[in-house]
Amino acid sequence: MSVTEYLQQNREKSLAELIELLRIPSVSAKSEHKGDTAAAAEWLAARMRAVGLTVDLVPTAGHPVVLGEWRGAPGAPTLLVYGHYDVQPPEPLDEWLTAPFEPTVRDGKLFARGSVDDKGQVYLHVKAVEAHLATRGSLPVNVVFLLEGEEEVGSPNLATFLTEHVDRLRCDAVMISDTTMFAPGLPSITIGLRGLAYMEVRVQGPSTDLHSGVYGGAVVNPANTLAKIIAQLHDEKGRVTVPGFYDRVQEIDERERAVIRGLPFEEEGLRKEVGAPKLGGEEGYGPLERVWVRPTLDVNGLLSGYTGEGAKTVLPARAMAKVSMRLVPDQDHHEVERAFIDYVKSLTPEGVTVEVEALHGGQPWYAEPSGPVFEAARRALARAYGREPVTIREGGSIPIVKAFEDTLGAPVVLIGFGLPGENAHAPNEWISLDNFHQGAEAIAALYDELR
Amino acid sequence: MSVTEYLQQNREKSLAELIELLRIPSVSAKSEHKGDTAAAAEWLAARMRAVGLTVDLVPTAGHPVVLGEWRGAPGAPTLLVYGHYDVQPPEPLDEWLTAPFEPTVRDGKLFARGSVDDKGQVYLHVKAVEAHLATRGSLPVNVVFLLEGEEEVGSPNLATFLTEHVDRLRCDAVMISDTTMFAPGLPSITIGLRGLAYMEVRVQGPSTDLHSGVYGGAVVNPANTLAKIIAQLHDEKGRVTVPGFYDRVQEIDERERAVIRGLPFEEEGLRKEVGAPKLGGEEGYGPLERVWVRPTLDVNGLLSGYTGEGAKTVLPARAMAKVSMRLVPDQDHHEVERAFIDYVKSLTPEGVTVEVEALHGGQPWYAEPSGPVFEAARRALARAYGREPVTIREGGSIPIVKAFEDTLGAPVVLIGFGLPGENAHAPNEWISLDNFHQGAEAIAALYDELR
Repeated sequence: MSVTEYLQQNREKSLAELIELLRIPSVSAKSEHKGDTAAAAEWLAARMRAVGLTVDLVPTAGHPVVLGEWRGAPGAPTLLVYGHYDVQPPEPLDEWLTAPFEPTVRDGKLFARGSVDDKGQVYLHVKAVEAHLATRGSLPVNVVFLLEGEEEVGSPNLATFLTEHVDRLRCDAVMISDTTMFAPGLPSITIGLRGLAYMEVRVQGPSTDLHSGVYGGAVVNPANTLAKIIAQLHDEKGRVTVPGFYDRVQEIDERERAVIRGLPFEEEGLRKEVGAPKLGGEEGYGPLERVWVRPTLDVNGLLSGYTGEGAKTVLPARAMAKVSMRLVPDQDHHEVERAFIDYVKSLTPEGVTVEVEALHGGQPWYAEPSGPVFEAARRALARAYGREPVTIREGGSIPIVKAFEDTLGAPVVLIGFGLPGENAHAPNEWISLDNFHQGAEAIAALYDELR
Repeated sequence: MSVTEYLQQNREKSLAELIELLRIPSVSAKSEHKGDTAAAAEWLAARMRAVGLTVDLVPTAGHPVVLGEWRGAPGAPTLLVYGHYDVQPPEPLDEWLTAPFEPTVRDGKLFARGSVDDKGQVYLHVKAVEAHLATRGSLPVNVVFLLEGEEEVGSPNLATFLTEHVDRLRCDAVMISDTTMFAPGLPSITIGLRGLAYMEVRVQGPSTDLHSGVYGGAVVNPANTLAKIIAQLHDEKGRVTVPGFYDRVQEIDERERAVIRGLPFEEEGLRKEVGAPKLGGEEGYGPLERVWVRPTLDVNGLLSGYTGEGAKTVLPARAMAKVSMRLVPDQDHHEVERAFIDYVKSLTPEGVTVEVEALHGGQPWYAEPSGPVFEAARRALARAYGREPVTIREGGSIPIVKAFEDTLGAPVVLIGFGLPGENAHAPNEWISLDNFHQGAEAIAALYDELR
């Protein structure tokens, strides 16, 4: 039986296993899910051992790293597979059509928190290894899996982990599946990711909530103040006003601009996908440029005062905003964080105090689309999908990509099997079952191409 | 035994009774407290019957009205006492030093939700009646109590109630104790209240929460948009920008300006009371003018996206603000609500939709400080406190005051026994025990003065 035949004949079993993994609510951001997050690591370790990998569960200061190895091909290249088994918080729960941790198949899609980001995309790599070992007893390359449980909280312990285990992790290429294909059936290699600077702004006015009648008018309202600060973070052209924000931003070259123009993209399709009445953004750029090669600033959360049923006439003591900036090469998240903090403080009027905290950050990343690993990936995708892959960027961040490159000195290749509209980080997240299965075939083919 | 002696000898019993009433969490805004709100009405009805009033519990479309009467003084004036037995929601609970519905005495203050707003101030009127009936067997005037359970949600059914029971409620004056004294020991008659227009603004962008990386930059963010809308509701001088907002605002006359200047007020005292680093507000007015005679606009609540622990990179589908305006004579809350709705819609950019709802409103109120009832109140307060009362305004709203005047055609006199810093509508609400007891004496004296 060929590797591909094995994968095709075992599709039901693969899906059933993934569903087991998706049932574990490994929400790394929430301390009450610490045990669940550990359980997901243990589930993966057990499965990976079962397919023939040697597995260590390595403790960190946070959630453990699952380290799986198969080194039976001396002299052949070594491929490091990076992914994460933690997931985003599922809230708001009432917008899920089926419960986030009760995986459900509808219309060829598997719905569950973590289905595409990143459990499904991690697990298809495990299945690719299984297919080789089950049919041939060996792999054409050496493989190291590094699966972490803290990607959704900014990978606070992974850079240290890489440094401490640099010898064990030495490899010829790093492979990550945590991105999307540009369109169904159109295999895609991602050559750029945005960075992130995620901030929390806390404005404090009076020491306690006040009666808005008795005191309203004489006290600086922290919620109004926070709104005024946020409003000043963009100009009328949709550009971010943080001083120096654009200083290091690289405009894309003509070649990439042409690639972007050549993609099968329709603005109305994106508008429908997000369900907004109209798209928007920075003047002078198209939607793909706005999400791939331009930096942004978005409010991720707002909280102040009374937000329950009915009317409460309270003048709030405090107001909070979560604000994140997506960064592009060559912005530096530390620099942006410092500039943001200084700027927000400069916008804060008398009568309130402000605290600004950097919750987490990551550097933007770009890779030249060339070299032997990139070419092998291109051929493997063409084989599995019957179609030449396109190169794209992605607006999201995988903060650790740059650390892999810098620490291990190996090229990083991002082959994603998500799809537009997959609702990662949102209610009703899903992965395409076709992509879960074809992805495993593509990765299995990639091992052969790399030999 | 004199009426005053009776009250002084029964202070412990009066306090114990009030504590019983305060234990009942009659939060009218929350449907889960419907039973508690009814229980507070029944408790009051039972106590009022016990002191000698004839009591009806009159159902309304919402919470019941407690209607208590003593009409044994034919030919004498009739005094209507209005108050409310419902309370504000107690949240945020973790800021209370002792639980909101476990009344606790510290430093001469009784701490509990509803202690000063308005259960304590209602109950001292009941005690004044009791003192007369217990010592003399009669009252010098006729008394009607009208205690509602919906003041904190805007008295939606009271105007109808007044109209439907106008004959039964006919009176020579309406007496309300739901305001504060200007300072400890300084009896005060309130001659002005601000009105209220309480709005909810809901901005909807994408149909569901989105990944802020994948989509950020191409989608109009409803939280940023809401912040921008709110920021545009004031100009740089702290004036409200809603078109026409100031058209009907009456500047105060020189006489009242002189009264305000003569009050024992220090800005630093107010600043310490609210615990803010500095006071603020509309340019060109002092703090007392800002809260008494100038209209305002305050955000009461903000909610959007992810507000929990840690960082979630979500581009929120929607954002909500509760925004209330305090109004002064002769602003009209219906007119202001319409202008606010139109203005917010005009500020809403393409890419999102906005809904604006008026949650509740009330008219501002002002009474000339003259006439026989005002004079009787002045003398009674001077007797109980040994000091001439001052006339003040209050920044808060009692939406029904104007309806009383208009429907019953009787003057309304506001004698408050709260104190600055009493935390009405905030955690750690309290009433001064001295004022609870002296207040009952003052009201008992007022009955004699009105005869």
